[in-house]
Amino acid sequence: MKKLLIASTSKVYGSDFLEYLHDELLIFFKFCKNILFIPYARPSGLTHDQYTEMVSQNFKRINKKIIGLHKFKNKKKALSDCEAIFVGGGNTFVLLNQLIELELIDTLKNVINSGTPYLGTSAGANICGPSISTTNDMPIVNPINLQSLKILPFNINSHYLDPIQSSKHMGETRETRIKEFHSLNDETVIGLREGSYLMVIGEKVILKGELNARIFKKFNNPYEIPPETDLSYIT
Amino acid sequence: MKKLLIASTSKVYGSDFLEYLHDELLIFFKFCKNILFIPYARPSGLTHDQYTEMVSQNFKRINKKIIGLHKFKNKKKALSDCEAIFVGGGNTFVLLNQLIELELIDTLKNVINSGTPYLGTSAGANICGPSISTTNDMPIVNPINLQSLKILPFNINSHYLDPIQSSKHMGETRETRIKEFHSLNDETVIGLREGSYLMVIGEKVILKGELNARIFKKFNNPYEIPPETDLSYIT
Repeated sequence: MKKLLIASTSKVYGSDFLEYLHDELLIFFKFCKNILFIPYARPSGLTHDQYTEMVSQNFKRINKKIIGLHKFKNKKKALSDCEAIFVGGGNTFVLLNQLIELELIDTLKNVINSGTPYLGTSAGANICGPSISTTNDMPIVNPINLQSLKILPFNINSHYLDPIQSSKHMGETRETRIKEFHSLNDETVIGLREGSYLMVIGEKVILKGELNARIFKKFNNPYEIPPETDLSYIT
Repeated sequence: MKKLLIASTSKVYGSDFLEYLHDELLIFFKFCKNILFIPYARPSGLTHDQYTEMVSQNFKRINKKIIGLHKFKNKKKALSDCEAIFVGGGNTFVLLNQLIELELIDTLKNVINSGTPYLGTSAGANICGPSISTTNDMPIVNPINLQSLKILPFNINSHYLDPIQSSKHMGETRETRIKEFHSLNDETVIGLREGSYLMVIGEKVILKGELNARIFKKFNNPYEIPPETDLSYIT
C-alpha cells in the first residue's frame, strides 16, 4: 500500500528545516531506522555530500539515520532495498534530469507503489505528479522530457502563492501561469500553500496542515478545499 | 547594424500596454510603416489572432500597421522581407518551442543581425540571450533545447524582482534561482526590472529607463548598474 507524505516546503517561516512536520514524521517513519536520501535537486548548488550532511544532522532529532543515494554504486538496488525514501527540494529540473539520466524513474515508481514510505518536499513533491510542468523553478538544465513519477493523478504546484493585492509587479501571478498550463495541458493542478502537505495512504490522498489548498481544473474556475479533504476523487 | 529594443515588460503598473515606451517607439520605428508581429508566446492562452488584434489596436496610436507572422504561409520569407519585428510576451517556453518547430531560429537571427529593427518584451526579450534558462515561466511545453537567439552575449531575467523583505514566503528568491543557474551554467545574467529596457545599436547595449539593472556574473557577487551604462563590455 502506497504511503507518501508530500509537502509544499521543507521550511515554514520562522522555524527550522522540517520542524513543522516533526510530530508527523515521528509517526510516518515509526517503523524505519534508515532513510535513503535523494539529494539530486541540490538547492543553491550544494554538493550532494553537503546536502546529505545537512539533512542527516536534522534527522538525528527523530533518531533516524540518513544515507545519500549518490553514495551507492548500484542505485537501483539501493532504492529497492531501502526502508524509506526522502527526496528534498531544490531545482525540480535538476532533480528530474538526474533521475532520468540515472534511469531511476521506473525503479523509484515501483518502490513507492510497493509501499516504501516516501517523503517529498518541494521539488521532491513536484515529481510525484504526471509532469513537472507546474514547477516554479528555472530550467537551468533541460531534461529530455518533463514526465515524472505519476504516483498522483494531478500535478503539484508547491510553494503556492496567492496574488499579492498591493503588488505593482506585472509579471504573471501563479494563477495566471497555471491557467496558461491548462491552455496546452489537461492535468488538474493542486496549489499547495507553504505548511500544507498531502498524506497518501493507499488510494486516499488527504490534505493536511492548517491552510486550504487551491484546485485548478481545466475549463473550471479555481476553487478552495479545506484541510482533511480527501483529494483522491480529483483527477 | 543591429537595432533592438529589449524590454523587461510590455506594461508597467498603472499604464497601458507599451504606454511607457510610447516616445521611444516613435523614434525606434520612425522609418517603418508595417511591423511583423510574432504572437507565439500567447499570453493567457489567447489565440494568435486575438493577441495580434490586441497589439494591432495598440500600435494604431503610433500609426503603425501590425501583421501577424502566423498569417503567412512562407514565414521565413515574411521575416526576411519585413520592415520591423515585434515579439510580445507570454510564455517563453511556448514561444521558443514554436520558433524551433517552425525552423525560424536561424532566419530570425540573421534578419536581426542584418539590421531589421526588433522590439522584444518579456518572453520576446528572454529569447535574445544565449538560452531561456533564466525565464520565470512555467515549462508548459518542453522545447527540444533551450538555446535561443544569442543576439546578446548574456541571458536576460525579465520582470526582475528584488527579495521582498517582509515576505514570509520560503520559495526561492529570484537571486537564489539565478545563483542556482550559475551552479550549472556560465552565462552572465542581467536582471532587468520592470520599466527597464536595453537599447542595442550595433555592438552598443545601453540600459534605459529609470531603474538600475542587476548583474549576475558567475563566481562574483551580484552588483547594480545605473541607467545609461553601456553593457556591451559584459559577457
